[in-house]
Amino acid sequence: MRSAKNIFSRTRIGRVTRAPRRQCANMSPMFAVLARDKESKARRARLTTTHGEIDTPAFMPVGTQGSVKGVSPRELRELNAQIVLGNTYHLFVRPGMDVIKHFGSLHNFMNWDGAILTDSGGYQIFSLAKLRKITQEGVEFQNHIDGAPAFISPEIAMEIQMLLGSDIAMALDECVAYPCEYDYAAQSAEMTTRWAKRCKKAHAVILGEVEGSRPTTSKLSHRDSSTAVRSARNDDALRQLLFGIVQGSTFEDLRKENAQAIVDLDFDGYAIGGVSVGEPEDEMMRAIEWAEPFLPENKPRYAMGLGTPPQLLELIARGMDMFDCVLPTRLARNGTAFTATGTINLKNAEFALETNPIEDDCTCEACREFSRSYIRHLIKAEEILGLRLITLHNLHFYLNLMNQARTEIERRTFDQFRKKFVANYKTRNAVMVQ
Amino acid sequence: MRSAKNIFSRTRIGRVTRAPRRQCANMSPMFAVLARDKESKARRARLTTTHGEIDTPAFMPVGTQGSVKGVSPRELRELNAQIVLGNTYHLFVRPGMDVIKHFGSLHNFMNWDGAILTDSGGYQIFSLAKLRKITQEGVEFQNHIDGAPAFISPEIAMEIQMLLGSDIAMALDECVAYPCEYDYAAQSAEMTTRWAKRCKKAHAVILGEVEGSRPTTSKLSHRDSSTAVRSARNDDALRQLLFGIVQGSTFEDLRKENAQAIVDLDFDGYAIGGVSVGEPEDEMMRAIEWAEPFLPENKPRYAMGLGTPPQLLELIARGMDMFDCVLPTRLARNGTAFTATGTINLKNAEFALETNPIEDDCTCEACREFSRSYIRHLIKAEEILGLRLITLHNLHFYLNLMNQARTEIERRTFDQFRKKFVANYKTRNAVMVQ
Repeated sequence: MRSAKNIFSRTRIGRVTRAPRRQCANMSPMFAVLARDKESKARRARLTTTHGEIDTPAFMPVGTQGSVKGVSPRELRELNAQIVLGNTYHLFVRPGMDVIKHFGSLHNFMNWDGAILTDSGGYQIFSLAKLRKITQEGVEFQNHIDGAPAFISPEIAMEIQMLLGSDIAMALDECVAYPCEYDYAAQSAEMTTRWAKRCKKAHAVILGEVEGSRPTTSKLSHRDSSTAVRSARNDDALRQLLFGIVQGSTFEDLRKENAQAIVDLDFDGYAIGGVSVGEPEDEMMRAIEWAEPFLPENKPRYAMGLGTPPQLLELIARGMDMFDCVLPTRLARNGTAFTATGTINLKNAEFALETNPIEDDCTCEACREFSRSYIRHLIKAEEILGLRLITLHNLHFYLNLMNQARTEIERRTFDQFRKKFVANYKTRNAVMVQ
Repeated sequence: MRSAKNIFSRTRIGRVTRAPRRQCANMSPMFAVLARDKESKARRARLTTTHGEIDTPAFMPVGTQGSVKGVSPRELRELNAQIVLGNTYHLFVRPGMDVIKHFGSLHNFMNWDGAILTDSGGYQIFSLAKLRKITQEGVEFQNHIDGAPAFISPEIAMEIQMLLGSDIAMALDECVAYPCEYDYAAQSAEMTTRWAKRCKKAHAVILGEVEGSRPTTSKLSHRDSSTAVRSARNDDALRQLLFGIVQGSTFEDLRKENAQAIVDLDFDGYAIGGVSVGEPEDEMMRAIEWAEPFLPENKPRYAMGLGTPPQLLELIARGMDMFDCVLPTRLARNGTAFTATGTINLKNAEFALETNPIEDDCTCEACREFSRSYIRHLIKAEEILGLRLITLHNLHFYLNLMNQARTEIERRTFDQFRKKFVANYKTRNAVMVQ
């Protein structure tokens, strides 16, 4: 056994305190499509997880290090967020798996009783960590905080995400950069497929192990109660779901082949990765369009790391159900707020005397209570409340956009809604994605 | 007229939208002492302002730039804060008086319907600004943000605070550094007295002017409604109160003479300034003890810029009613939390696996919902939620300490409570004041 793996091996599973449960045969479907748009591939569906139902199309606020930046779990609940994303790599590096294991799950640790999707950690290992060696076996790397060496493989990615106790785990993939040579993209997509297969197998093995183990009670009994309530409410006990990821860069044949190969492995849901890596928007849309027809209708589809508000509607029209993006939280910290007509930067002098809120008809806390002028002052004076308020508004904007999309799909008027929204949104290309 | 004054003169009053009202003869007393401790000078009282009643002893969270750092007005209300402090100098520099005038008051601007005390701006002019020239007339200075020249005099300090619409304004004083030569301290205290007299006169003139003017309606009608409700509830209409400030450095005769001279001017309340400027704790206590006997029993007493939790109880025992201090918010940003046994720094490794909250019996949001381990992780990972949670806890700690003090005074058991608290508090000298 290699030394780097030994360092990592302290995270080996064994004392998971909250055991994901096996899916029963007689349960309601994990994913149910409730309505379809007339003119596009948009669908309104419901995904059932261990920590509640997720209405799709759904936006997942990004909680990189166990916290959606600037926002409390209570505020997330008030925003009606049903699911957040946790970054496995960041959490592995800090606070580390010993701490998460001690709490039984990421839910317990961050006191969030909604659903959590964790990524595999691969994306950050390839983009943030000092990459030492990539082999078919896995990746040796040094983390970006203290340089400690570690090793990740498909099997270890499954173990870590099970320790995190996420409701949805992601298979380990390689997300190639843009632009990418065809040969590298082809080899990488093949490796991603082989890794996906190993993830599927390892996940099943771990689920079996966990099922056989006896859950112990966390010290934080009041936090466990929410889990207990949810489990009791859902007669059909659930397990952690596992999504496969389609790669293939910007090449039609690779995208199609890879989509088919990943779907053949029969995951609980499918993500399209390797988008939002710097490619032009039309390349991104094409990557989605090539892969989408291969994805089964009865499983959720997740477009990773996307996007601007118009992009989200375009992706919904192309059959995507789930999204995550750092834009609402990241841009807020720079003073940028989303509105129906595009982004505005509240640092601008034009807002100095504006007594109206960020958006007149918005129902978020920032818009109910505060003026553009005050928020501008807070941002200029580097007061934390300023970025808190814009973050709340931006998350509300994204979550509300999904809520509107769901309603419009139910009414079969989604396509008109999309066209109107995109036409009114003026800063479509002004905002960098990621 | 000097040119610096012209720059400042744009702030001259004239279109104040929320008019402070004259105190009526038949109203309930502005300040009512409700109970006294048996063994000390501690008193439990109630101060009535335009924006509600303030139960004393009271702690005032510091909202330097129109925001208590990291905390929203809603959270301040949930913490049962009745009054916050606003720094006139900071607000004058940014966002500037034009913006505040546009909103009608600082209350409207920051959407806080509790009471506000504003300082005179003198302290920051002497400590932060580039001081250009101090004369009997006033102080010429350049602000620390963009170096713009400005001039402040006792009269201008009153005008600005009236524009801010604070419930309690402070007279302009010179807060001398520690240590200070006797002769300088004596001359400075005399000037502070002359300035106090001019403040009193200017304040009365402005109140008369405002009374004569006709209030206009703010554009933010929902914000004005809270003011209207409060005004309607209090049959006895109120005006902005003005507190005098006692100086005199660390010299017994100067403190006593200055206290008598300031009290002779008949202010609505009295502050003891020039403390918490780096002097040893016993010097600070002596400065308070020298001045206190000169302060009338039927007026509130405010110890400026203080202090640690044990210091607050010691000052209450010495007859002080009101306090402001940046420690709860400033230390929170460094990961330091207050507990009944002293401060703890949550960055320390010992907290890495602690599932219990900051304080076991604490009822604040941070302690109800989150573990020491999680908060430590957030602080280490520089997540904003970490400092938010510790700030909430620390403010709760200070406000709750005042609440306990009031209850103990009512029960006539304050002195035992103080002694026990101080004895249990281990880090008494570990925390720098200011």
